[in-house]
Amino acid sequence: MKPETPCIVGIGQTVYTRWNAPLESTELGLGCEAIVAAASDAGMAVRDIDGVTSFGGDGCEPAMVQAALGLTEVRLSAILWGGGGGGSCGAVDLAAMAVMSGQAKAVVAVRSLAQGQTGRYGRYSAKRRHGSFIYPFGLLAAPQLLAMHVARYMHEHGVTQEQLGAFALACREHAQRNPAAVTRGRPLDMETYLSARIIADPLRLYDCCLETNGACAVLVTTWERARDLGAAPVPILSSAHGSSVGWSSGPLGAFNMPLESFATIGAASLANDLYGRAGVKPSDIDVAQIYDNFTGLALMAMEDYGLCPRGEAGAFSASGAIQWPHGALPVNTHGGNLSEAYIHGLNHVVEGVRQMRGTSTCQVGGAELCLVTGGPGPAPTSALILGRV
Amino acid sequence: MKPETPCIVGIGQTVYTRWNAPLESTELGLGCEAIVAAASDAGMAVRDIDGVTSFGGDGCEPAMVQAALGLTEVRLSAILWGGGGGGSCGAVDLAAMAVMSGQAKAVVAVRSLAQGQTGRYGRYSAKRRHGSFIYPFGLLAAPQLLAMHVARYMHEHGVTQEQLGAFALACREHAQRNPAAVTRGRPLDMETYLSARIIADPLRLYDCCLETNGACAVLVTTWERARDLGAAPVPILSSAHGSSVGWSSGPLGAFNMPLESFATIGAASLANDLYGRAGVKPSDIDVAQIYDNFTGLALMAMEDYGLCPRGEAGAFSASGAIQWPHGALPVNTHGGNLSEAYIHGLNHVVEGVRQMRGTSTCQVGGAELCLVTGGPGPAPTSALILGRV
Repeated sequence: MKPETPCIVGIGQTVYTRWNAPLESTELGLGCEAIVAAASDAGMAVRDIDGVTSFGGDGCEPAMVQAALGLTEVRLSAILWGGGGGGSCGAVDLAAMAVMSGQAKAVVAVRSLAQGQTGRYGRYSAKRRHGSFIYPFGLLAAPQLLAMHVARYMHEHGVTQEQLGAFALACREHAQRNPAAVTRGRPLDMETYLSARIIADPLRLYDCCLETNGACAVLVTTWERARDLGAAPVPILSSAHGSSVGWSSGPLGAFNMPLESFATIGAASLANDLYGRAGVKPSDIDVAQIYDNFTGLALMAMEDYGLCPRGEAGAFSASGAIQWPHGALPVNTHGGNLSEAYIHGLNHVVEGVRQMRGTSTCQVGGAELCLVTGGPGPAPTSALILGRV
Repeated sequence: MKPETPCIVGIGQTVYTRWNAPLESTELGLGCEAIVAAASDAGMAVRDIDGVTSFGGDGCEPAMVQAALGLTEVRLSAILWGGGGGGSCGAVDLAAMAVMSGQAKAVVAVRSLAQGQTGRYGRYSAKRRHGSFIYPFGLLAAPQLLAMHVARYMHEHGVTQEQLGAFALACREHAQRNPAAVTRGRPLDMETYLSARIIADPLRLYDCCLETNGACAVLVTTWERARDLGAAPVPILSSAHGSSVGWSSGPLGAFNMPLESFATIGAASLANDLYGRAGVKPSDIDVAQIYDNFTGLALMAMEDYGLCPRGEAGAFSASGAIQWPHGALPVNTHGGNLSEAYIHGLNHVVEGVRQMRGTSTCQVGGAELCLVTGGPGPAPTSALILGRV
């Protein structure tokens, strides 16, 4: 490992609760709680954190975190620009850049959601720019916009509703072993999945991610500094965020409009960079945490990242391949956004770290490489490959 | 020069106009125009730019710039978090991080303002968070908030109104030679300065920056890549952004409230890092572009960055030391935010590049080191040291 290799040395999270559960804190308060937990996990003094980063309209502005937690100096105060859940791994990518280049020493990526206070992501918002171009067509909220995307994908590749359901069921089953999952104790079967109400055809209730409150945080430093700390560092073998020209949120600032095919989340070029820099192939990946705002988008992501051939992620999921403990490639071993909590995908990074530490509640034996992906956008999207030492 | 040393290889700008002049473009349109100009200056194809960064609520979101300009791939899509003019050099710092760490190849920092369309920075805005804590005391807009800061500084160090005026006059005089300056053809004398109306005591009309429309852009790549391009690269010897614990915008999210002294913009610790990394001393600086939202803040910045002893920047300015061509340390050789245009300080970086290239309209003979500083906040603040090859 090179001395400047970025490593995750601490993870932290709050209790995850449903969006409308009583909440005695704020978005900033929850974020700070997660940051303190990540520092404690790393064996680092909170005041020594010198950078704060996030994505997707987070409320933990570094100057406020600094004042609240007494960070001595801040040397990275940056947030992904554009995007929503697309940026989850991108926030960690920014942290990695800052420590690799020597501009900061220990940067925390945080994502905090108090949707009961700030508004539900899954709901229509009159504040969205350029809404007048899409609202008249009934495209008010994320499920409605992305349902079209998923329908086209199913049409192009013959993906079935049961195959979408297989992805949802795998996440739910993994969540049953995860004490932090808000759906623990509420298992799901195919009959219940298929009979659930339609949110926006073909997306049914259990195709859609949860709406929750909570925060998590990931603390990044260099390999050289990590060795001085108690916790076992998890190296970031590669990280990237970005977008390709034929696939961006475009001038409407609305949802993503891929120009060539709807059967993708537009991450293929990014995936190529990611594997190239890490010097590994998709077939080397032992476990994956795939951003799952909706089942169908997670399937497309698996294909963009080469985990299975184009159009086959549905059949792959239905075959049991993504299911712990016997599947060839367990996916979302924490339960994902669908069944652990919707912490906008940063919880997927946290689970990736647990897998590389060997501490997941659905631990993949001998796992040495974990792929973590950010959402389909709006642009940028992002991803990480984590390793172990 | 190391192969990965970040360099500025292109600068671009639009025409600068008063905020209420007729404008046939938008914030995005102006930004794209400046980006195209910077690519042209660098001898680089626009499509090869793979990162976009900014600060202070800029409207040139990378996904939109990508769609508008056909950027093939974006690999840095990040913006300074928090802050306003404090982030001008910080945007360049983010670009530097991205190219140094190898995450992106050619990143453009852009700042575009169309204040007639989006709102005037110098005006009261009901949208500002937590305004109810400060508005009842008459602190509605930036001049009112920062007037207290400047008054305290003057009180602590015996700085006079004429000394503030000396800074404004130097900027105005430099602007008379700059064809892009909106105040060209309108020279200023001390009598006019002193008899101008008070905006917020002790700040008079000419103590306050202009309110203008326009955009500029700065293109950053590595030394290794810069050598393949036509333009002479200007190395970024060091860059940093950040804030210190006793000096941040704090939990109110309002303006900066330094805890120890008002006679500072809170940049002393950042300055220390900046000089240390570049391996130079304040006395080595040949020319400086100091962020000047208000005269008094620029004086405090000169002290924080060690260009003169604490409390002496007023006398230093009045002595003629900051005036081109005879002063020992010419400052704001383009005219600054006070007299060239208010492009939120990114225009100071552009002028810094011109000085290092030897192409300023107030060129400092033999200049080898240029300090450029970002505004006093809200946090983070930022700065660069530029060199020449």
